[in-house]
Amino acid sequence: MSDTADRPSPESTDRNPRDMANAIRALAMDAVQKANSGHPGMPMGMADVATVLFQKFMRVDPQNPNWPDRDRFVLSAGHGSMLLYALHHLIGYADMDIDQLKAFRQMGSRTAGHPEYGHALGIETTTGPLGQGISTAVGMAIGERLMNARFGDDLVDHYTYVIAGDGCLMEGISHEAIDLAGNLNLSKLIVLWDDNGISIDGKVELATKMDQIARFKAAGWNTWSVDGHDADAIEAAIAEARKSDKPAFIACKTIIGYGAPNKAGTHKVHGEALGDDEIAATRKALVWESEPFELPEAVVKGWREVATKGAKARKAWEERLAASDKRDRFETAVNCTLPAAFAEEMQSYRQALAKDKPKVATRKSSEMALEVVNRLTELTIGGSADLTGSNNTKTKDMVSVTADDFSGRYIHYGVREHGMSAAMNGIALHGGAIPYGGTFLVFSDYARGAMRLSALMGIRVIYVLTHDSIGLGEDGPTHQPVEHLTMLRATPNMLVFRPADAVETAEIWEIALTETKRPSVLALTRQGLPTVREDVSENLSAKGGYVLKEAEGSRDVTIMASGSEVEIALKAAETLAGEGLKAAVVSMPSMELFAEQDAAYRAEVLGQAPRIAVEAAIGMSWDRWLGDNGRFIGMTGFGASAPAPKLYEHFGITPAAVVAAAKDLAAKA
Amino acid sequence: MSDTADRPSPESTDRNPRDMANAIRALAMDAVQKANSGHPGMPMGMADVATVLFQKFMRVDPQNPNWPDRDRFVLSAGHGSMLLYALHHLIGYADMDIDQLKAFRQMGSRTAGHPEYGHALGIETTTGPLGQGISTAVGMAIGERLMNARFGDDLVDHYTYVIAGDGCLMEGISHEAIDLAGNLNLSKLIVLWDDNGISIDGKVELATKMDQIARFKAAGWNTWSVDGHDADAIEAAIAEARKSDKPAFIACKTIIGYGAPNKAGTHKVHGEALGDDEIAATRKALVWESEPFELPEAVVKGWREVATKGAKARKAWEERLAASDKRDRFETAVNCTLPAAFAEEMQSYRQALAKDKPKVATRKSSEMALEVVNRLTELTIGGSADLTGSNNTKTKDMVSVTADDFSGRYIHYGVREHGMSAAMNGIALHGGAIPYGGTFLVFSDYARGAMRLSALMGIRVIYVLTHDSIGLGEDGPTHQPVEHLTMLRATPNMLVFRPADAVETAEIWEIALTETKRPSVLALTRQGLPTVREDVSENLSAKGGYVLKEAEGSRDVTIMASGSEVEIALKAAETLAGEGLKAAVVSMPSMELFAEQDAAYRAEVLGQAPRIAVEAAIGMSWDRWLGDNGRFIGMTGFGASAPAPKLYEHFGITPAAVVAAAKDLAAKA
Repeated sequence: MSDTADRPSPESTDRNPRDMANAIRALAMDAVQKANSGHPGMPMGMADVATVLFQKFMRVDPQNPNWPDRDRFVLSAGHGSMLLYALHHLIGYADMDIDQLKAFRQMGSRTAGHPEYGHALGIETTTGPLGQGISTAVGMAIGERLMNARFGDDLVDHYTYVIAGDGCLMEGISHEAIDLAGNLNLSKLIVLWDDNGISIDGKVELATKMDQIARFKAAGWNTWSVDGHDADAIEAAIAEARKSDKPAFIACKTIIGYGAPNKAGTHKVHGEALGDDEIAATRKALVWESEPFELPEAVVKGWREVATKGAKARKAWEERLAASDKRDRFETAVNCTLPAAFAEEMQSYRQALAKDKPKVATRKSSEMALEVVNRLTELTIGGSADLTGSNNTKTKDMVSVTADDFSGRYIHYGVREHGMSAAMNGIALHGGAIPYGGTFLVFSDYARGAMRLSALMGIRVIYVLTHDSIGLGEDGPTHQPVEHLTMLRATPNMLVFRPADAVETAEIWEIALTETKRPSVLALTRQGLPTVREDVSENLSAKGGYVLKEAEGSRDVTIMASGSEVEIALKAAETLAGEGLKAAVVSMPSMELFAEQDAAYRAEVLGQAPRIAVEAAIGMSWDRWLGDNGRFIGMTGFGASAPAPKLYEHFGITPAAVVAAAKDLAAKA
Repeated sequence: MSDTADRPSPESTDRNPRDMANAIRALAMDAVQKANSGHPGMPMGMADVATVLFQKFMRVDPQNPNWPDRDRFVLSAGHGSMLLYALHHLIGYADMDIDQLKAFRQMGSRTAGHPEYGHALGIETTTGPLGQGISTAVGMAIGERLMNARFGDDLVDHYTYVIAGDGCLMEGISHEAIDLAGNLNLSKLIVLWDDNGISIDGKVELATKMDQIARFKAAGWNTWSVDGHDADAIEAAIAEARKSDKPAFIACKTIIGYGAPNKAGTHKVHGEALGDDEIAATRKALVWESEPFELPEAVVKGWREVATKGAKARKAWEERLAASDKRDRFETAVNCTLPAAFAEEMQSYRQALAKDKPKVATRKSSEMALEVVNRLTELTIGGSADLTGSNNTKTKDMVSVTADDFSGRYIHYGVREHGMSAAMNGIALHGGAIPYGGTFLVFSDYARGAMRLSALMGIRVIYVLTHDSIGLGEDGPTHQPVEHLTMLRATPNMLVFRPADAVETAEIWEIALTETKRPSVLALTRQGLPTVREDVSENLSAKGGYVLKEAEGSRDVTIMASGSEVEIALKAAETLAGEGLKAAVVSMPSMELFAEQDAAYRAEVLGQAPRIAVEAAIGMSWDRWLGDNGRFIGMTGFGASAPAPKLYEHFGITPAAVVAAAKDLAAKA
């Protein structure tokens, strides 16, 4: 243990910086001990850094946790959740009373094993899956710059602070994030690295020799290295970092489990309770005499000054907002309010489509819908992971964001699907914008970690995933998704859409934009599709599945399909009609929304006749809708490299195959 | 265009280095033009680098493409597949005749849009999803060092060369790979970066300012920067890189689409055919007079020298092998031959388990099985993404691999699930080892890109994925997989196992190790489970699903379950028996293997009675087995943070819930 660390710095005007940090240590070790589960090492190691950060710099107001111009704090090393909960208790978030700390990791408590967005006030994002926090924070810092460019320093001017550990920096997503941050020169992003030299397997040297300082410099960051137990050094570094003209990386050399005489500095203190003996010894070493979950009054008073300062800043900001001529526009942005005419305009657009009947790929009809959307609202922030022209995500008037100018609304995320997705999470969490971003559907594989967090947090992030089947053709099986629709449909709280034509695509954009509690995936074709919807009186996609074409008379078969295969289903139904078999065609743009309809509606759509489902993908997600005697026409394995029409023939996803299955079913009925 | 590039270097002893490179350019542009699909820019840009590499350094023998000590070449920028196909045609792989090049990207050709492992001789790995190639190559280079440590320089001493583009280096996985390579000091790995400054969206500056040289240095690599059109400079850099004591990174400044007078150096040449006019202009600029798909004799002769040199080296190596006292052991390794007694020993071990009836977590019984396996064979190379103690992947006698000593067989992959998975692909592709590696099941999200390639390539890679449900408890929803079993089961050609006890775990290890054409996922519990299997006369897991406990008399209900929920199913059946309802219990450790059984067997196992499935996960993958009247007891959303027993209660995954469902079904029957 460093012998300078326990000493309050002489210049400090604070009563008890040592005890303030030790309060975090005590709460962390006692809560983990009581739960007999959790990670004490990181909160104890980073207590000094966190104390300096909050006491000297953080501008938050626990009474107004969602104040838009607050600083953001992201605990990227989310396993150290007790650091965050202790901080929130100490600075006085109303919902983080001592009983919550006592109920750490217990059913129904706000103090989950890892910080969960929405479980308690002031938790800016869910962390725990390593690397997500730092990458989401990049999105928050982008959000801040976007808002700042629109509303000026008076209304938007705050920092995004991150505490990240070795694990975060080893994860690939951190590379994508820091490269993006460097390119956009996010100078108000400050990352504090808990450089404790320990990971779960033991010393980090087992797995990495990375020179992190050199790495961040290579990505265009400014860097500092400090003793993470030296309050003055930490304060000086953060002060400089705040003035930095680039994103800032501060390596804080720390001792994991600082204060625990026998276990500090080892991986034993990382992920389990210290044990009664070591806790007693730690109390002694830290000269911390309070009982578990009790705090000296002076310490509490010291911590509450953070809230006092925050409240003052917030009040001053509110006065500036009240006086601002941008107030209305600002509030529209913060509340992500779509214009009153939004639904009506989207409806007129769909009426025009029904008349024009364009034959275009749904990636193109997505762009067409976005042309309408992006004219109606300035909330949407588009982007792509280096597939702009393929994803059709950039509408005509969109200007690209650059390091020097954030007034644009299109982001070149680079070949970084995971980093893009996490950044979109950050933009959505920051507020003031609705992010959408594109890549190929198959590369949702690369983005899964962040996409799952969009769903878990329940935030409005829109994934524009084009090239959604073997229909992409020659690029072959590496680029042809087959299992991805199932994978995404299996993900809780995620809306997965696969529109059949331009009308459904427009409907789906309206749903995705107005759905505030769930992310949406739009699976879109590369290849052209005819307009199949005639009746646009209602947003039928909102029901998830609907009868696109009813059989003439009582059904012999119901053919269900999504996306590009709806055309195949319609052709099959037509052929069948010619042969005297009555087929209904159900378009199923979203299984999730269909599952949410009442049983009577679902039964009416699905009908009593045998069912066939057609989708150029693995059939697993259709089993629920097929019934015991249903048939699936689709993929059973990986795709191949050839022109799309050849592939559909080769894999037997054709009207003829549907017709044959329908006849067979009818013969057996 | 650089004016030095077209000039044969004065020191060169070669007839026509310019024309040798131009042959690649011509074949690439003509094949893409004929297909009207593909990426001419990269092959044209990197033709000079590839020519120097193959002509001066690559040691391959097209007549013996699988010669174990060949150099490995990985085209990480897989969209430039015509570079590889052209090279293979030029150096004389028997299956890459000119007709294949003419059939580029057509159905059934070997010349798929992206290089596909197994589609043509000499394709070392499937690439296209960016970043996979460089990361797989790290695994190949690890494989080389592992084999070298066992068999010495005489038998194993080759290089792994990679051509990577900007996309590969932007992807997060590249960070994981280069950090791992630096830490293990893979000095025989040489990465050639196609530094052309262009990505799909336009100039790379749109998305990155990364100083790649500084970045690789930070990761512990040696670096060079050369003009990628200057043959002498390229040759000198590769020569030095081969002597490097660290992994080597050579930045090759190139012009994308080099040779095309109007489109070179722009993103227009990246991903579409040049068009007839530009091709004509390029022929003129390059002074290339041959018709499409025709080659001057001298050029062909020059290229065939690569094969001649390779054959000579291969013959010399074969003589060394013939004379080596390690020959038998080497061949056992290269063929991945398990010992003759393997099946028998695994069977004795299972008999012992059936007697001892251990009550342990399946992650622990996996370790126990591995103790047996790792004693029986030296082929297994274990590892974990920094969760060794949690994944139970390191058996007692395993020694860790370090940069200085590759005689060990355990790899600390670091917090790098994606990099680990790609590295395992590379180790398996290199040959001589069967890699297995651990992380938490939920973090398969991070590894999806590489796991999909394991399945697409059909290679023996074993994923040990522990903490496989809400049964992991307090870590909460970020760490609790719910959709992952469905996601993995939906992935073609992947075996997904979820064993119920120590016996099944041992069975599954045997299957995974003997399955040569598919990767396996082992989903294992954190929490303890009783031994439920009594009859160990046969490897029942090999059938995927089987009747673990038959009902006494004709079934009223069939309860299916996997893993930790089999215990719940058994308890429910017991309770039901007490209430006069006859329930059979089916254990379903692998749906894929069950689906492969004949219909009669499946029907016998599933029975005629109503079915219930129990799995602490999303039920989508069970729909197929449940039938119209089946019930699913499991998860419908994300988990929560609490001790595991509380979570099972909270989410209603209990014997009582199964009993209630069974009674309800029986009442309706």
